[in-house]
Amino acid sequence: MVAMELLGYYNGEYGPLEKMTVPMNDRVCYFGDGVYDATYSRNYKIFTLDEHTDRFYNSAGLLGIKLAQSKEALKGILNEMLRKMDGGENFVYWQATRGTGIRNHVFPEDDVRPNLWIVIRPMQVQPLKKKVKLITLEDTRFLHCNIKTLNLLPSVMASEKAKQAGADETIFHRGGRVTECAHSNCHIIKDGVFITAPADHYILPGIARAHLIKACKAQGIPVDETAYTLEDVFSADEVLISSAGSFGLAAQSVDGKPVGGKAPELLAKLHKYLWDEFLEETDL
Amino acid sequence: MVAMELLGYYNGEYGPLEKMTVPMNDRVCYFGDGVYDATYSRNYKIFTLDEHTDRFYNSAGLLGIKLAQSKEALKGILNEMLRKMDGGENFVYWQATRGTGIRNHVFPEDDVRPNLWIVIRPMQVQPLKKKVKLITLEDTRFLHCNIKTLNLLPSVMASEKAKQAGADETIFHRGGRVTECAHSNCHIIKDGVFITAPADHYILPGIARAHLIKACKAQGIPVDETAYTLEDVFSADEVLISSAGSFGLAAQSVDGKPVGGKAPELLAKLHKYLWDEFLEETDL
Repeated sequence: MVAMELLGYYNGEYGPLEKMTVPMNDRVCYFGDGVYDATYSRNYKIFTLDEHTDRFYNSAGLLGIKLAQSKEALKGILNEMLRKMDGGENFVYWQATRGTGIRNHVFPEDDVRPNLWIVIRPMQVQPLKKKVKLITLEDTRFLHCNIKTLNLLPSVMASEKAKQAGADETIFHRGGRVTECAHSNCHIIKDGVFITAPADHYILPGIARAHLIKACKAQGIPVDETAYTLEDVFSADEVLISSAGSFGLAAQSVDGKPVGGKAPELLAKLHKYLWDEFLEETDL
Repeated sequence: MVAMELLGYYNGEYGPLEKMTVPMNDRVCYFGDGVYDATYSRNYKIFTLDEHTDRFYNSAGLLGIKLAQSKEALKGILNEMLRKMDGGENFVYWQATRGTGIRNHVFPEDDVRPNLWIVIRPMQVQPLKKKVKLITLEDTRFLHCNIKTLNLLPSVMASEKAKQAGADETIFHRGGRVTECAHSNCHIIKDGVFITAPADHYILPGIARAHLIKACKAQGIPVDETAYTLEDVFSADEVLISSAGSFGLAAQSVDGKPVGGKAPELLAKLHKYLWDEFLEETDL
């Protein structure tokens, strides 16, 4: 069997992504009414799948979306679909939308089941030696950033703004207080301490963030989950971003001004821990 | 030709809504990346179509979505599709999404054109004698409520909450300051003055709201576009909500407490003006 290049799945049907269609009345089309999660695989092993699955069910639960599958069944489907692909590194993305029905803000009737979507495509985790450029932007998002929803317009706008500025990501802040990035968490290292915003409703509780915290603890690096400011970013020893595909990339500049680069040994220790973990967990 | 019951349209294709499909890679599916507008028609005349079209292009422009049609072309398509329906009262809904492409936060390449969607179905404007029940909820939405986007999860959640409470709509407030409702604007009448929150980034600039203001001015009723609070709602002479389908419905209760009912003559004058306008503009 020839491996698929880009796989799309919708409620049990699957095929080449660009040929897949969905009902016009899926509630995602009118409201963005759904939640998602995503991670990477290597050698047909989906990295940190249990954690991503738990967060996915948590996101759904916070919006009252009653998923049709058990966690084990979902993981089974994801693994089954992944087998249609080449076994290198893949980006494994899935989402659930509240259901299909004529546009109406209120939830559909109880017999309407959520729709399950999967997209899998070849993509590699970012090399940790990459140094990113960041910009800053006032965080104007809703106050439910702890839920991984499909209402992502502010992140779309911020990402485009970063691209136009020749940068990789955008640091959001609320009146100077850093929350997170448009599609990553943000952290700083200062005087040997790893500082990251608390996991409240202003940020997504990133799984790469949790692994960075774990890496710090394993290395004896103190972790401070306290709000910090843009000023702290500019005076930090290192500025890092993390996401499913970037375990902890150091920034070289923010708004065009050089940042970080003052704790390279500590950064190297964290990187080694995170990369080793990824390789071990996804080993053949 | 038999009239359609529910019409769906996507980029030139149309058919029965429940049979229509869209590409899985339409950006609305991953980001809610689009804008919409909607109004009602009667006798094949789309009420306040110019105003809704202008607002639609404004919403798109604020998000950098370069619509593929001119305003006149869009109005032509809407009118052409409406002709497939019965000529009674219809709900005419349309949206544009940024385009189709593999999921990526940044905008697609310049040659990717936005997708145009239309949904038309029989539905009547709410009778103005209806008295609505409201609940209140902290407004946790993003700070772009002036743009009519497809990121509507907080409105979905608030609408469901109202339904569960046996109510019709939800008044959003920011720390007590009333913004608008989940899918309507909100207004009060007090001591002969019509008071409505200013059209800033906390509310959608409702077209029914603009017509209510026009009706007030035509009747010599002073209009005060100043922020007001939940306390003002409870002590108001009348509390009104307005949307494309409800030109100015008076509330009977908020959070179960009786409100309004103290300026019935003034309310009747406004209702007569608004209803007459609708009938005249959509007359055969």
